[in-house]
Amino acid sequence: MSTHIQQIAFLGTGLMGAPMARCLLHAGFPVRVWNRTGSKAAALVEDGAVHAASAVTAVAGADLVITMLENGSVVGELLFDGGVARAARNGAVFVDMSSVPPEIAQLHATMLLELGQHHIDAPVSGGTAGAAAGTLAIMAGGDAETFQRVEPVLRAMGRPVHVGPSGSGQLAKLANQVIVAVSIGAVAEALLLAAAGGADPAAVREALRGGFAESRILELHGQRMLDRDFVPGGAIRNQLKDLDTALAAASNAKLKLPMLEVVRAAFAGLKDTGAAGYDHSALLLWLEQLNAPARVGDAPDRLPS
Amino acid sequence: MSTHIQQIAFLGTGLMGAPMARCLLHAGFPVRVWNRTGSKAAALVEDGAVHAASAVTAVAGADLVITMLENGSVVGELLFDGGVARAARNGAVFVDMSSVPPEIAQLHATMLLELGQHHIDAPVSGGTAGAAAGTLAIMAGGDAETFQRVEPVLRAMGRPVHVGPSGSGQLAKLANQVIVAVSIGAVAEALLLAAAGGADPAAVREALRGGFAESRILELHGQRMLDRDFVPGGAIRNQLKDLDTALAAASNAKLKLPMLEVVRAAFAGLKDTGAAGYDHSALLLWLEQLNAPARVGDAPDRLPS
Repeated sequence: MSTHIQQIAFLGTGLMGAPMARCLLHAGFPVRVWNRTGSKAAALVEDGAVHAASAVTAVAGADLVITMLENGSVVGELLFDGGVARAARNGAVFVDMSSVPPEIAQLHATMLLELGQHHIDAPVSGGTAGAAAGTLAIMAGGDAETFQRVEPVLRAMGRPVHVGPSGSGQLAKLANQVIVAVSIGAVAEALLLAAAGGADPAAVREALRGGFAESRILELHGQRMLDRDFVPGGAIRNQLKDLDTALAAASNAKLKLPMLEVVRAAFAGLKDTGAAGYDHSALLLWLEQLNAPARVGDAPDRLPS
Repeated sequence: MSTHIQQIAFLGTGLMGAPMARCLLHAGFPVRVWNRTGSKAAALVEDGAVHAASAVTAVAGADLVITMLENGSVVGELLFDGGVARAARNGAVFVDMSSVPPEIAQLHATMLLELGQHHIDAPVSGGTAGAAAGTLAIMAGGDAETFQRVEPVLRAMGRPVHVGPSGSGQLAKLANQVIVAVSIGAVAEALLLAAAGGADPAAVREALRGGFAESRILELHGQRMLDRDFVPGGAIRNQLKDLDTALAAASNAKLKLPMLEVVRAAFAGLKDTGAAGYDHSALLLWLEQLNAPARVGDAPDRLPS
């Protein structure tokens, strides 16, 4: 087994996948791209990609297959029903950077191993900005030797860290989503408390930067709350899907996670009121509904059309 | 009224106050220091401070009086029962950097105004490290003109931001503490979820850095949880005091803040089991008790003696 990656197939070049593939191309890796909506993959040709008409064609002869798809079902269908798992070179590594439940990642790893292939689950955090800059947090699960083989490629897209055996990358992503969701709740409660007491919430957010409350969420989602800009970004329906997966993983491990339960209920409540397509910083709206007429700022709400 | 500060008195040179006063001295401001335990103030003489034997002596002729004391009662007693408010120059500014309830800050402001003095509430976040480096988050409430007069002095200790009228600085500090406490809860739940599912929690924390979950709390208190180092730092009894003040402020504003309530109950539970002196990252212990035998890491607990 060569440790040097010679041919990469990148399947799924949507909002996240396209800038990630571009990072690989700009780092000099040979990449064949495929996307269900072909035009999104074709756009990468000018960055040096080879555009494949089908996923099977894209992976033919590849020793590294990267998937960045909507969910675990789509990944499973493509790899196993769509014939992609068998079409790659024997002994290839399949790095699934999609967010899928840990047990599905483990199942895919087992199924690939039976076909003589390898699997790394490597979901990401950092959004489209992190994808474009090549600074994604990359959480990788699988065996250490396989991780080391693909690490130089992953490094072109961000900061890969091997976090444990198969499924651990997905577990780390769930941990990430728990922190993101609960932190959004924390910032919403803090800004509403400040505003209701007569302080200027925008100045409060500014003042808190540099102290112990400093975070990406205070920075980005705190600003969204002040602007009341709830156009996604990260939609509530996706956040809710991740939190449900996190609660299922907690339940499997017989864990009770009280803060996760509070934010899960908040996002579920928002979805029920038709806000599933709003950015997850709209957790503020749930908190304001609970505390009417308290409100953060005077700006009109910016909602997705 | 001169806008140029000529003589500063610094009252309360303990763990936080001493490095803050040192920043002023190193920036070239003339500072007279006083502390109840005199030796802690005397140690600043080598940095250029004048050590006063009493608080009244320290403030005689001062046009800026900074207090960094244990709580609102101690501040009130010193200023009004101890004669300090009258001993400063007429028209002096009293900047209280202690953490006190917003309504006490407003009361002090009113009482000082009746004596012809000015008041700014300007509590801080960033701990002893931030105090030593002169990088504290400084949250200032009071009238804008008075804030502008003292801003250059505050800037020697960190990043002052004017967040609103009297009491707003304290409200911002409460907002800060809400974010800190809830974020500690978020990190504890995330690391326990990762560990219980079989991932390496230390690698997960490392992987999450640079993604949307990045925060000072993940950085500092996440590492404490992995090291199981619960020697304070920020003690649970202080965190609980701040959260109770935050809940009282929420109640005054008729706000229900569900995440704050969960962490408040957790810290209260920890205090009841004798952990009041532990670092607030020991919220992890409460979560582990709720989920026994799940645990983050194998290290033995480091507890305060």
